[in-house]
Amino acid sequence: MGVGDNDAVANQGFTPTQLSARAAYLLRGNDLGTMTSAAPKLYPHMWSWDAAFVTVGLAPLSVERAVIEMDTLLSAQWSNGMIPHIVFANGRDGYFPGPARWECRSLAAAAPQHVDTSGITQPPVHAIAVQRILDHSRRRGRTTRQVANEFLDRRWGNLVRWHRWLADARDPQGRGRVTIFHGWESGMDNSPRWDSAYANVVPGSDLPPYHRADLDHVSDASMRPSDLEYDRYLWLVEQMKRAHYDDALLPGVLDFAVEDVFVSAIFAMACDVLATIGEDYSKPRADVRDLRAWSDRFRSGVVAATSERTNTARDFDLRAGRWINTETIAGFAPLLCGGLSRERERALLRAFEGPRFCGHPDLRYAVPPSNSPIAANFKPREYWRGPVWPVMTWLFSWAFARRGWPERAARLREEGLRQVREGSFAEYYEPFTGEPLGSMQQSWTAASVLDWLD
Amino acid sequence: MGVGDNDAVANQGFTPTQLSARAAYLLRGNDLGTMTSAAPKLYPHMWSWDAAFVTVGLAPLSVERAVIEMDTLLSAQWSNGMIPHIVFANGRDGYFPGPARWECRSLAAAAPQHVDTSGITQPPVHAIAVQRILDHSRRRGRTTRQVANEFLDRRWGNLVRWHRWLADARDPQGRGRVTIFHGWESGMDNSPRWDSAYANVVPGSDLPPYHRADLDHVSDASMRPSDLEYDRYLWLVEQMKRAHYDDALLPGVLDFAVEDVFVSAIFAMACDVLATIGEDYSKPRADVRDLRAWSDRFRSGVVAATSERTNTARDFDLRAGRWINTETIAGFAPLLCGGLSRERERALLRAFEGPRFCGHPDLRYAVPPSNSPIAANFKPREYWRGPVWPVMTWLFSWAFARRGWPERAARLREEGLRQVREGSFAEYYEPFTGEPLGSMQQSWTAASVLDWLD
Amino acid sequence: MGVGDNDAVANQGFTPTQLSARAAYLLRGNDLGTMTSAAPKLYPHMWSWDAAFVTVGLAPLSVERAVIEMDTLLSAQWSNGMIPHIVFANGRDGYFPGPARWECRSLAAAAPQHVDTSGITQPPVHAIAVQRILDHSRRRGRTTRQVANEFLDRRWGNLVRWHRWLADARDPQGRGRVTIFHGWESGMDNSPRWDSAYANVVPGSDLPPYHRADLDHVSDASMRPSDLEYDRYLWLVEQMKRAHYDDALLPGVLDFAVEDVFVSAIFAMACDVLATIGEDYSKPRADVRDLRAWSDRFRSGVVAATSERTNTARDFDLRAGRWINTETIAGFAPLLCGGLSRERERALLRAFEGPRFCGHPDLRYAVPPSNSPIAANFKPREYWRGPVWPVMTWLFSWAFARRGWPERAARLREEGLRQVREGSFAEYYEPFTGEPLGSMQQSWTAASVLDWLD
Amino acid sequence: MGVGDNDAVANQGFTPTQLSARAAYLLRGNDLGTMTSAAPKLYPHMWSWDAAFVTVGLAPLSVERAVIEMDTLLSAQWSNGMIPHIVFANGRDGYFPGPARWECRSLAAAAPQHVDTSGITQPPVHAIAVQRILDHSRRRGRTTRQVANEFLDRRWGNLVRWHRWLADARDPQGRGRVTIFHGWESGMDNSPRWDSAYANVVPGSDLPPYHRADLDHVSDASMRPSDLEYDRYLWLVEQMKRAHYDDALLPGVLDFAVEDVFVSAIFAMACDVLATIGEDYSKPRADVRDLRAWSDRFRSGVVAATSERTNTARDFDLRAGRWINTETIAGFAPLLCGGLSRERERALLRAFEGPRFCGHPDLRYAVPPSNSPIAANFKPREYWRGPVWPVMTWLFSWAFARRGWPERAARLREEGLRQVREGSFAEYYEPFTGEPLGSMQQSWTAASVLDWLD
Repeated sequence: MGVGDNDAVANQGFTPTQLSARAAYLLRGNDLGTMTSAAPKLYPHMWSWDAAFVTVGLAPLSVERAVIEMDTLLSAQWSNGMIPHIVFANGRDGYFPGPARWECRSLAAAAPQHVDTSGITQPPVHAIAVQRILDHSRRRGRTTRQVANEFLDRRWGNLVRWHRWLADARDPQGRGRVTIFHGWESGMDNSPRWDSAYANVVPGSDLPPYHRADLDHVSDASMRPSDLEYDRYLWLVEQMKRAHYDDALLPGVLDFAVEDVFVSAIFAMACDVLATIGEDYSKPRADVRDLRAWSDRFRSGVVAATSERTNTARDFDLRAGRWINTETIAGFAPLLCGGLSRERERALLRAFEGPRFCGHPDLRYAVPPSNSPIAANFKPREYWRGPVWPVMTWLFSWAFARRGWPERAARLREEGLRQVREGSFAEYYEPFTGEPLGSMQQSWTAASVLDWLD
Repeated sequence: MGVGDNDAVANQGFTPTQLSARAAYLLRGNDLGTMTSAAPKLYPHMWSWDAAFVTVGLAPLSVERAVIEMDTLLSAQWSNGMIPHIVFANGRDGYFPGPARWECRSLAAAAPQHVDTSGITQPPVHAIAVQRILDHSRRRGRTTRQVANEFLDRRWGNLVRWHRWLADARDPQGRGRVTIFHGWESGMDNSPRWDSAYANVVPGSDLPPYHRADLDHVSDASMRPSDLEYDRYLWLVEQMKRAHYDDALLPGVLDFAVEDVFVSAIFAMACDVLATIGEDYSKPRADVRDLRAWSDRFRSGVVAATSERTNTARDFDLRAGRWINTETIAGFAPLLCGGLSRERERALLRAFEGPRFCGHPDLRYAVPPSNSPIAANFKPREYWRGPVWPVMTWLFSWAFARRGWPERAARLREEGLRQVREGSFAEYYEPFTGEPLGSMQQSWTAASVLDWLD
Repeated sequence: MGVGDNDAVANQGFTPTQLSARAAYLLRGNDLGTMTSAAPKLYPHMWSWDAAFVTVGLAPLSVERAVIEMDTLLSAQWSNGMIPHIVFANGRDGYFPGPARWECRSLAAAAPQHVDTSGITQPPVHAIAVQRILDHSRRRGRTTRQVANEFLDRRWGNLVRWHRWLADARDPQGRGRVTIFHGWESGMDNSPRWDSAYANVVPGSDLPPYHRADLDHVSDASMRPSDLEYDRYLWLVEQMKRAHYDDALLPGVLDFAVEDVFVSAIFAMACDVLATIGEDYSKPRADVRDLRAWSDRFRSGVVAATSERTNTARDFDLRAGRWINTETIAGFAPLLCGGLSRERERALLRAFEGPRFCGHPDLRYAVPPSNSPIAANFKPREYWRGPVWPVMTWLFSWAFARRGWPERAARLREEGLRQVREGSFAEYYEPFTGEPLGSMQQSWTAASVLDWLD
Repeated sequence: MGVGDNDAVANQGFTPTQLSARAAYLLRGNDLGTMTSAAPKLYPHMWSWDAAFVTVGLAPLSVERAVIEMDTLLSAQWSNGMIPHIVFANGRDGYFPGPARWECRSLAAAAPQHVDTSGITQPPVHAIAVQRILDHSRRRGRTTRQVANEFLDRRWGNLVRWHRWLADARDPQGRGRVTIFHGWESGMDNSPRWDSAYANVVPGSDLPPYHRADLDHVSDASMRPSDLEYDRYLWLVEQMKRAHYDDALLPGVLDFAVEDVFVSAIFAMACDVLATIGEDYSKPRADVRDLRAWSDRFRSGVVAATSERTNTARDFDLRAGRWINTETIAGFAPLLCGGLSRERERALLRAFEGPRFCGHPDLRYAVPPSNSPIAANFKPREYWRGPVWPVMTWLFSWAFARRGWPERAARLREEGLRQVREGSFAEYYEPFTGEPLGSMQQSWTAASVLDWLD
């Protein structure tokens, strides 16, 4: 029926205006009112770092709505300062482990009573979201600026407490690296980074039985973790519950304790972002001073974790007492927070852009896969073991722009946009074929696109 | 706090990608599931021509969702063929007159039983929406094309019946003009076009009492119709109810009966659009033939209604038996459907673009106001008595493109986009100052923007 | 050396701003001062229809410069009204046949004395150029508008004389089709359309010897006409010279005389464009009336040339007294000027968009090739025997927009832009591979892109 | 004649594609073959820093042509390493002082013999140009990359010699600041920065007579320097000539000797850029080391020149032995090269964005004027005493992006583009009204726009 009536011609991708419209349409479609579900079916609740990235995407659409997203998340902050990795949407079922499994309200003294949350945390990217709220508010009228300013006034304390908790509870010895007690706390749930540490997690015979809900919505189980992995995940939850999610007890109880160098780099960066906001908006000097100090401490911790040979950063397994050598996207943590010498940083950039990562000749788009395509444990379709996560591309492009590398930032943005221009906002993508995988309406992917196209 | 922290610098308007994102965000925000409310507070239900324009905006976002919008509307079609002007959303209150006032289910034999509707109709722009669904589907993959094709197969009969009802029930004498029995049927509720005809509507003393809900959400009552006007509106409804909404009875009963030249022009155009679709998709030749015949008949009817002096088209008051001389946007009806001689058409274009309309020197944007700025009854803030309606700008730009006037279409598009680039998607705008008026989140305004930016 | 340092990543094409910048850069680079060479090496002079298309591209850059381009061309108009197909740039050598071969100054009574021209003509697309000058001038300030208006006043007579010459000298019997006496007059020099007519051209033994300059700049001779073809080309020139380029004598002398249906359709369209300009700018009514009459006459002539079976238009060989049946882009002439019945036009559009033309499954872009890919004489790399000419795509997109087919126009524009987005502005392109061919810096290709991106 | 036929509607500015096309068109129009004149009439030759900025604009259009621009400039480098501030185009007259006044060929041992140049220098922004050549080449095909790489190989020595000359000849005592011996060497010819230093320049009675050519093309003399100023300018040239332009003699001879803190900051930045290029392209480690050392030295020199109170940087008058206190754009030099403490840098950014500069409430666009609008010596139309220079906006936006401030860079870019979107590419603009001033076709303004729109 005329030109274009065949798939070949039709599939030329969307224009920038179409793409941003579709991303906004998706984001509002995932809106539950005061929170945005990470993805409508697979992830019907609010995840901590998803919420932060979603806020980045909401800010250009509605500063007011973006503020609500952060408010919802911060309202669920624990009294010890922890932002939990999940805030459960009222009346939404279908995710496991859900509130009944975590039992935080009854077990954890620090957990809020008015809302259900999980008992672990996720990477601290929230300062970025706050900055984007403020950035956008400055382009709007007086009323909107006031909404943003009041938000900052209202939540500054929450944000500082959150960072303080990470610095204190998760790095009690001041080594400059955030300890995580569950792979999920890294955000990269089944990354090869955690394989060796998980190997030491032996699920007790008294692990309560469970049914996995994640498989109900995913047709290809090979993209998701195995059952044994899942047992280990839940065993760690079980250990936490038995310790009543008590910060003081966890280090002595958990089978899994790893210093996560990627979370640490994000934290160093976020402390700087928050400190600058504090300066811009005349927050207490003592807070700013603490934030700068944490930033320095964790930057040093990241640098100290780098390999002399490859310059990539490594996680440290506290249980095994050794560095973890994998070749994942997390190795480029120092590019986010800085701190390497000029020469080493250049070498690391070359590695990032070289044939073991973004420059691998078979990649469809020059964006960083979650695992090196030449790693032995690389799996192109398996969650954090190989696929490309657009939100990670966004994070690097955002960080690179702030590191003073506009061309690198622009190139990641261009390639990231090329990856989604056929219209899906998938959770992750097969790196060689470009096939969209996981959820097809992932909020943070749409949010990344909205920020890129802003 | 840095460059831009003042309203002057901040208010430079949004970029195209930002604008399309915000329009899509709005449209999804007004989504009630299977219908899109015309505006979230003021108009919480589905209006017939709003739904068609909304569909135009949904099509680039999701052909599937656009199809649902039309399906919802067409599911409420009356058995006589009429598409009612309102389909009430279940459980949404706050609009008057609501189902309890119309009482169509109980009074009208042709009204559907499964859904509440009003008992009058609105301009037949639906063929445009169907065309946009098909246009967009051809740019998508096979699955989406199939959704669109099946929609057309499923609804072709509804569409032809709708057009046949207009041709038969509303122009029984074949004069080539659609008769409306209520100003609301024109879509331009309080236009000066209806003043004289309404003057002959004398509300009976037995008009049941009522409370106007429209004023609950509008702070400035001067933008809305007066109480006396409202009494007349409701008296006509009362007359229809007493005639059981019977097509055969209405012409003999109603105090108000006007041949609407703008609706007639839209109908002529829509018949052509639908006929071409019919040809493209191999629909019954008899249907196509009927559509072309109606198109010709109503085009002639519009031309016959034009003033020899001004070349503008006039409505005809059947009760008073005379042409109505006003100077509103509706006068340009022949530009939509064609039919004038070359010379007269050129003169009418000059009038459209000249100082009495788009070219008035005080207009903020060169778009057609609903009433001529130099008309005695011009009111710059009063609904259809002066303000600019972006959806009308869109309609003319769309029609002009099809008339073979790409530069004129582009110019209207550019000016229309300039008008909304400060971020509101208002129902209508003050023509001189550009102040947004009425609902600030009007679905069809967002839809117009989405189509323009596609 | 970082992301992008490989051809695969690098070759993603240019953005719209880059593309328009490069097109403008090219156009100015080909600027010889008061004329733009068609291409810097291969075609160092001004061609008549090239100049018109170039003017379309100059208008958005500088209305003033666009006016100069047309002034230069029109200054070389012959006193009989003919616009010659070449205006030779002073002091530029290297093109054959050059002034010394044509000898117009000394042989032709109607030729200008102050400038060298060829002795034949080319398709009358100039009214389009004039319209674009006027369109753009209306968006500029008063001074620029005045430049354009004065240009029109100054050149209106030239333009009408040019059209009158075509109507009179080239259609003396009023058949509604323009007769050409040389394939070059069609602009499609070696099209299969002329094969049979050329077969009857027998170069005399007294054809003066010559050296072909076109081969000096083209590495692949297969893309250019053969030597025998060239002998015929020059023999016709010889015949014209012997008749002193006398309009009255040519019909009786030339071995080649064909009614060109594509030129005729362009002429019908151009007459309408010029007539509308005449009306808009209050030119003499008699001129406008003549232009409309010619438009009608040639539209009818084109329609009369269409095949009942295929609806495509055919050229008529006056020497052989028969219709020429080929399957080239020229067959779609009626789509440019209109005139077919609705049904036949729809069928012709289907053919245009179908598998024998734009919809051929192996085409890289959905744009019309100069010859049907399934024609026996199709040659994908040979000038007008197969390749895609972007300027033809532009002409159809421009005409379709004026025919009232905005979606079709937009689609041709999109595909046309995709074809050039890798950065070359080639004269023509291989239809299947997209390989750029001929001159790589063709002015009219850049001009087409500039108009599309405007 | 239709919508838009009035200045009000017409003047809405150009779209991005139109703007980039016009910029490219201008740049090619100013192309003299192997050099681009700074502006076609007023500045018909090649200026050193103009050439560098022009190269930035040429790079996206043609890496090959951009290379030629730099080659032309570097071919005129003096044997001591100096890049002269003017390279005279052969056969172009009309600029004073011209070669006959400078007499470099005959007087200066280091001057080249094959080309005429001036005898002074200009700010060292050339490394930026080289980087942009390399950036763009990496997005192109193999051939283009090779052109760029060979250029770098061929010219690396020139570039390092140029920087070495600045470090040695112009900062012999290693104070970390570049000494200039003529206000013209700053590029900001008549800036208030030089008023006090010029006051000490007493033109000798033996100053040879002259005729100012700059006034021939400027209608409003108030925008250009006065005659007395001009006498001083030429007296300094006279002094240099009498010293045979000998680097060793100038410090002892010239009445004018100022450490230019803005040039020094540019130099610090350029050394870093060049060093990074050296690392990326494996240039001699010794060169890279030297470049980094110079960068550090001059960064320190700039910081040492900052006022404790205002944090702005000051020039130092070597003749008077004192800091020069003015409030011009040059005070923000530390923002280009960095080096201030976090706290002081933030204060300086606030000043830059505050009401004394970009944030002044009466500015039409939020871009830095050449002089503070609240300075006593501020003149809104007088060259470097007030107007906005788009190329300076570009320089700051470029530097800010590299400093890791993407939002600030984007905002300058947006405002800078708004300033030119009405179509002129003026040399400078009145800050309050936006009136374009000086040359209307300034190459570097077009180049800035091209880079912004890339």
